[in-house]
Amino acid sequence: MADRAPPPTRADFRMVRRIPTRWMDNDHYGHVNNVTYYSYFDTAVNGWLMEATATDIRELPAIGIVAETSCRFLQELSFPDEIHAGLACEKLGTSSVIYRVGLFRGDDNGACAVGRFVHVYIDAVTRQVVAMPEAIRTAVAGLPGCA
Amino acid sequence: MADRAPPPTRADFRMVRRIPTRWMDNDHYGHVNNVTYYSYFDTAVNGWLMEATATDIRELPAIGIVAETSCRFLQELSFPDEIHAGLACEKLGTSSVIYRVGLFRGDDNGACAVGRFVHVYIDAVTRQVVAMPEAIRTAVAGLPGCA
Amino acid sequence: MADRAPPPTRADFRMVRRIPTRWMDNDHYGHVNNVTYYSYFDTAVNGWLMEATATDIRELPAIGIVAETSCRFLQELSFPDEIHAGLACEKLGTSSVIYRVGLFRGDDNGACAVGRFVHVYIDAVTRQVVAMPEAIRTAVAGLPGCA
Amino acid sequence: MADRAPPPTRADFRMVRRIPTRWMDNDHYGHVNNVTYYSYFDTAVNGWLMEATATDIRELPAIGIVAETSCRFLQELSFPDEIHAGLACEKLGTSSVIYRVGLFRGDDNGACAVGRFVHVYIDAVTRQVVAMPEAIRTAVAGLPGCA
Repeated sequence: MADRAPPPTRADFRMVRRIPTRWMDNDHYGHVNNVTYYSYFDTAVNGWLMEATATDIRELPAIGIVAETSCRFLQELSFPDEIHAGLACEKLGTSSVIYRVGLFRGDDNGACAVGRFVHVYIDAVTRQVVAMPEAIRTAVAGLPGCA
Repeated sequence: MADRAPPPTRADFRMVRRIPTRWMDNDHYGHVNNVTYYSYFDTAVNGWLMEATATDIRELPAIGIVAETSCRFLQELSFPDEIHAGLACEKLGTSSVIYRVGLFRGDDNGACAVGRFVHVYIDAVTRQVVAMPEAIRTAVAGLPGCA
Repeated sequence: MADRAPPPTRADFRMVRRIPTRWMDNDHYGHVNNVTYYSYFDTAVNGWLMEATATDIRELPAIGIVAETSCRFLQELSFPDEIHAGLACEKLGTSSVIYRVGLFRGDDNGACAVGRFVHVYIDAVTRQVVAMPEAIRTAVAGLPGCA
Repeated sequence: MADRAPPPTRADFRMVRRIPTRWMDNDHYGHVNNVTYYSYFDTAVNGWLMEATATDIRELPAIGIVAETSCRFLQELSFPDEIHAGLACEKLGTSSVIYRVGLFRGDDNGACAVGRFVHVYIDAVTRQVVAMPEAIRTAVAGLPGCA
């Protein structure tokens, strides 16, 4: 479980979004609850996809559903911290993408959390796995790691 | 702001649902965050409607959207408290319902929170206000206050 | 329930904070869930208090707990909308404050939601109602409605 | 990313808790949002620890903070599903525990989600890593995988 490697830095990601914490993100222990970090991932990936494709991705014939996620928590956050979120591409498949997500506390250069986020594309009606929309493939192909 | 009247009791409501708190419901101050009480209201009303009508209300031609809510917080809650939620009807209109919601901490007889929750029915496609579905009217008409 | 009065505008509030929506703020009906609006209120009030007092209000000897809230929902929101939050003062007491909160969708001039948010100050240790900290009184006294 | 192995079953876990979904757990796509599964993990682990130790673990001199989590999403959930949560132990260290968490939709025998949840114990005051409290070690040692 020990992870002695230095945390990833901003240079490892395309910085895509600022996400201010909310008062209720803090839990009983006075720091941002672990669950909430995943809402930052979710928002960073989908918000960036909407901007990068200039499309409401929720209306495309194929939608990305989440097959797997993970997060290593490297440093505590607390309201009113602002998070800077970055994305990179670990693997771009035909019907799936594996993103790496880096979260940074304000202007810090070292990540406070690092995650993986796997989207699989399914037909919005039949729910069968299908190839991802071309606009999404093009956007992801430009991220660090794929580019 | 002072409210010297004794809190409502279970007898004022149809008890409809038990809602266990979740770890992250507690905020920085070590009690359930005020925002979260409204998720209990939301769950009590919609969950009860689905049971009482034996229908997936989300698939009806008219859906209830929330026009107004309020809550008076009478007593703190904390994980792992279980909440017992009760409903009553303040007003049953043609296209709208005003619910009263009572939340009780475990077996307590006095409410820990009391709310109002206003549903207005709109056509799921046109988003225009319409009469509420008959199944919903029938269910609500049986609640204390309407019955 | 009908509310024919025009919605409040930005001029009625001190604009205090921008709050971007998150992907998971949207619910089954494809709009921001009613519960989540209260997290915008919570964040606007407490975040502004921390800025206006230049203090971590959570460490003061008296803390503000929420006694009552309400919200009228005037217009739907949806991710990735950004919310602009404004505050005004409805009543400044010795141990309590009643805020009015206005939420605006992006640069809209008419509010998409209007709320009331009541803070009562209690001693952080004894939990008894006490006078609010002077720094907080001074900040609130400068809001529209009190000033 | 393909995972052709059959999902874990109830027999692989100590079943510890029922967690009803909430209305707002569903997101824009009409299923429980991926983020929310982690609140089920969080609640299952901490709720079970409080029951198994008969202690308010938040008041112990050492508290468990989350160092790493992950989840594979095997099947969609939707309100009003009730989740049955199970725990097992992957590794019990001196200052850390790795849990496996299985989520089941109602009475289903195959898991709808499987996760890992890593708690590291720190001194509640100094925030330094310390040995976990004995009551917690004893409880965890009785879980499948450790026992």
